[in-house]
Amino acid sequence: MSPARPALVVGIDPGTAVTGYGVVSCAGRAPALVECGVVRTPADAPLAERLAAIHEGIVGVLARHRPDTVAVEGAFYAKNVRTAIVLGHARGVILLAAQQAGAALRECAPADVKKAVTGSGAATKAQVQFMVARLLRLAHPPEPADAADGVAIALCAALAPPLPTLPSPRRIPR
Amino acid sequence: MSPARPALVVGIDPGTAVTGYGVVSCAGRAPALVECGVVRTPADAPLAERLAAIHEGIVGVLARHRPDTVAVEGAFYAKNVRTAIVLGHARGVILLAAQQAGAALRECAPADVKKAVTGSGAATKAQVQFMVARLLRLAHPPEPADAADGVAIALCAALAPPLPTLPSPRRIPR
Repeated sequence: MSPARPALVVGIDPGTAVTGYGVVSCAGRAPALVECGVVRTPADAPLAERLAAIHEGIVGVLARHRPDTVAVEGAFYAKNVRTAIVLGHARGVILLAAQQAGAALRECAPADVKKAVTGSGAATKAQVQFMVARLLRLAHPPEPADAADGVAIALCAALAPPLPTLPSPRRIPR
Repeated sequence: MSPARPALVVGIDPGTAVTGYGVVSCAGRAPALVECGVVRTPADAPLAERLAAIHEGIVGVLARHRPDTVAVEGAFYAKNVRTAIVLGHARGVILLAAQQAGAALRECAPADVKKAVTGSGAATKAQVQFMVARLLRLAHPPEPADAADGVAIALCAALAPPLPTLPSPRRIPR
């Protein structure tokens, strides 16, 4: 038994300055773009304020569309500890918003996103954008680029349903 | 002009498994412990669920006490990128809760916390716990240890008011 294909996916590309998102419907024979955009935060605002803006923006997107699945880019590739922590903050409030909305959460590694839309995990950014437009029958790739990244992540979850999962092993109490 | 001393501080030591907190009042002549405790999350729960539990727990503490200042341990010391990202997630939902509660946020580096309560940035954990108990006139250090860490962070913000800050420089638009 394989898990059901999601009906409506919101893909999110987290960032403290710009968080991109894409909403993809899988109701028809082929996936279709419903909406995409970005949540921008003021560059001179303190981190807590920016996190509140990201959380509020994503809560708004999820409330409007009520997706069954939220896909977020896996964060295993940050350049250094400092970058990783800041990126973790943004991902944290996004995972919180997904959990509060009751959506299933899917984490997609960057290479899986590329592979799902282009067939190669080593595809270039331009190739990904070209294929996002082609798969969704758009005249040109979604803009800005962060929104297109969100759409690609949503497509990854929409096109490649996850493998069936086993429940996490329980820790043996000491 | 130096910034006012906070009246009520909640100090938080973020962690995905155990988040410790301490509430310290500065209304009297010496700081006093109001409450301390931990938010524990189930070890077998997915990260998003654990983040929601941390957020809910801290939102509850802040709603009960309405502190003017929330102090969080600075996170510049993670062992590796993976640890840093996960810690960043927990800090993200805590900063969000502080922002949503309208409290001023104070970040305290681990060495500053140690220095504020023991006089040395290189103090041992036992020394910190001993001094936390002494400064707050307690018979023994707060338990569990994560709660004591939260109290020490609150004490750091309570005893050492921040230096006056200048507004962030605005970026010159291109």
